[in-house]
Amino acid sequence: MSDTPRDPGELPSLVSYNDIATAAHRLAGVATRTPLLPAETAGLSTLWLKPENLQPIGAFKIRGAFNAVAKLPEEVRGNGVVAFSSGNHAQGVAYAARRFGIPAWIVIEDSAPQVKVDATEALGAHVVLAPMEDRENVAAELCTLHGAALIPSFSHLDVIAGQGTVGLEIFEDLPSVDTILVPVSGGGLASGVAAALKHLSAKVQVIIVEPDLAGDTAESLAAGHLVRWTADDRRRSIADGLGGQPTDLSFAHLQRYVDGAITVSEDELRHAVQWLGRHFNVVAEPAGAATTAAYLHHVDHARAGTTVAIISGGNIAPALHADIVSEHFT
Amino acid sequence: MSDTPRDPGELPSLVSYNDIATAAHRLAGVATRTPLLPAETAGLSTLWLKPENLQPIGAFKIRGAFNAVAKLPEEVRGNGVVAFSSGNHAQGVAYAARRFGIPAWIVIEDSAPQVKVDATEALGAHVVLAPMEDRENVAAELCTLHGAALIPSFSHLDVIAGQGTVGLEIFEDLPSVDTILVPVSGGGLASGVAAALKHLSAKVQVIIVEPDLAGDTAESLAAGHLVRWTADDRRRSIADGLGGQPTDLSFAHLQRYVDGAITVSEDELRHAVQWLGRHFNVVAEPAGAATTAAYLHHVDHARAGTTVAIISGGNIAPALHADIVSEHFT
Repeated sequence: MSDTPRDPGELPSLVSYNDIATAAHRLAGVATRTPLLPAETAGLSTLWLKPENLQPIGAFKIRGAFNAVAKLPEEVRGNGVVAFSSGNHAQGVAYAARRFGIPAWIVIEDSAPQVKVDATEALGAHVVLAPMEDRENVAAELCTLHGAALIPSFSHLDVIAGQGTVGLEIFEDLPSVDTILVPVSGGGLASGVAAALKHLSAKVQVIIVEPDLAGDTAESLAAGHLVRWTADDRRRSIADGLGGQPTDLSFAHLQRYVDGAITVSEDELRHAVQWLGRHFNVVAEPAGAATTAAYLHHVDHARAGTTVAIISGGNIAPALHADIVSEHFT
Repeated sequence: MSDTPRDPGELPSLVSYNDIATAAHRLAGVATRTPLLPAETAGLSTLWLKPENLQPIGAFKIRGAFNAVAKLPEEVRGNGVVAFSSGNHAQGVAYAARRFGIPAWIVIEDSAPQVKVDATEALGAHVVLAPMEDRENVAAELCTLHGAALIPSFSHLDVIAGQGTVGLEIFEDLPSVDTILVPVSGGGLASGVAAALKHLSAKVQVIIVEPDLAGDTAESLAAGHLVRWTADDRRRSIADGLGGQPTDLSFAHLQRYVDGAITVSEDELRHAVQWLGRHFNVVAEPAGAATTAAYLHHVDHARAGTTVAIISGGNIAPALHADIVSEHFT
């Protein structure tokens, strides 16, 4: 499951609207059709939330993973699938594999907390532990050994198309939307959502959101080329879901479609997690609360107009959640 | 807005399916179309949740309140509406009034916490404080003074019809449903949901859920007549949303349609609040978590079959929520 070979220097093909619309049909009855939640009663009359933390695995990742598994030729899919991830993608692939009744091998770094291993195994996947730097190689070996297909976490058109269905649903529910706030890690969600909405609406503005401490994509967009931060630098934020970085494929989408970038502080992330719980009765992980933090602390509401903030996930460690829920913000 | 006068001893008219279906049309674009959340990834393959805590006011009450306000003759509605409640109904009526651009006077007991007064005023309602025992009289005076209409919190067919739309949506999303778990306080939600589902499905079983400490309705159903508990007795539970009691109107619905009753302990309520946060990323108030507590601790899953637990609301005090989130359950 690799990108079509292309000449160096050639621009990668972007996801098409048709790919995303087709993915939406595959996902019916699999991903939850999340509603838009109006923030009017919280005093913000032009904000709506798209709560992807309500998905069965607690994050939007189920969409891209399922679409990619569904698109495998049946004779390949029967051998099973492989992924390397300790986060929401691992559970997305495990969930998709279970739906198809095929095996999944998930490579998780050996330093990951046991709770992540347990969550993935609970979905029926085989967990293979490996040192962080060997994960990709171990995954490749598993593919060879079992004849299984690798499901990349974001840098593949089928994955991007699945994530793009979030954008379709937003437009279906709120065609007057002016501004979309979307968190960026590797950029799969932002790529798909932006491609969908830019096709559907002539006026929509897509703004990506990152932590200050993982603002590599904002910097890359400003520079006009990918600026690389070290993994250690990108992983300083409490938003552990936003520690990735774009590839050429996702960055090509972002360069084409994204209109702006906002970065948020650690304190703004914590405050947004608490605020979402109190005003919307949802539990967001810090990555999922990033767009809300941006809206509360950085966005000019009048200029942004009708705005949707995507809450990407809710898989927060219980101890951190307990901490944030009882925190006092000034 | 009072029930049609009737002879003593005559059975009250029950809500009709048509009333509920018409209410659903009125509520389109007002109440959030909440999805059903599968509990499969939490290891419960036949449980689904209906998260009404995601409504704009944090509870299902928006449905009945809006439907009742919408059904007032226009010349009456223009004078405004009155309610007495310190809970979710107050906010439901205030929200509905604001949608119609009419005044709302909400009578709240003078011992209620300031946060409830603030939440109601934030929705644009006039809050009138009165001693607990005078609330009803003060509300009646306000109606006379302003020519306004009283919106009862549950004991009215228009309110019951609005709450019944929860049942319509459940059937629309999961027509194979075998068992519905619904919390009971005054019984408006259970009445409407049961009326809707018993009309649509020949097989569905409706089970009401109460705290052990507020089990007056379970006792009444077993006795075959309304058994009255004192208000002090009914209000001992942490589930402050379940301290009401049925009237003749709601009890007639429950007697006709309900198949069973479960009561849950305080510890089970607390555990269910935490469990819903960890596995579904939703914040439930104890009343809203009662049906989950029943499913986790009392229901025979195989016998219940495909089950929907209604999460009625999420308006939990922040301090209590922080307590429960960090609690250790054995």
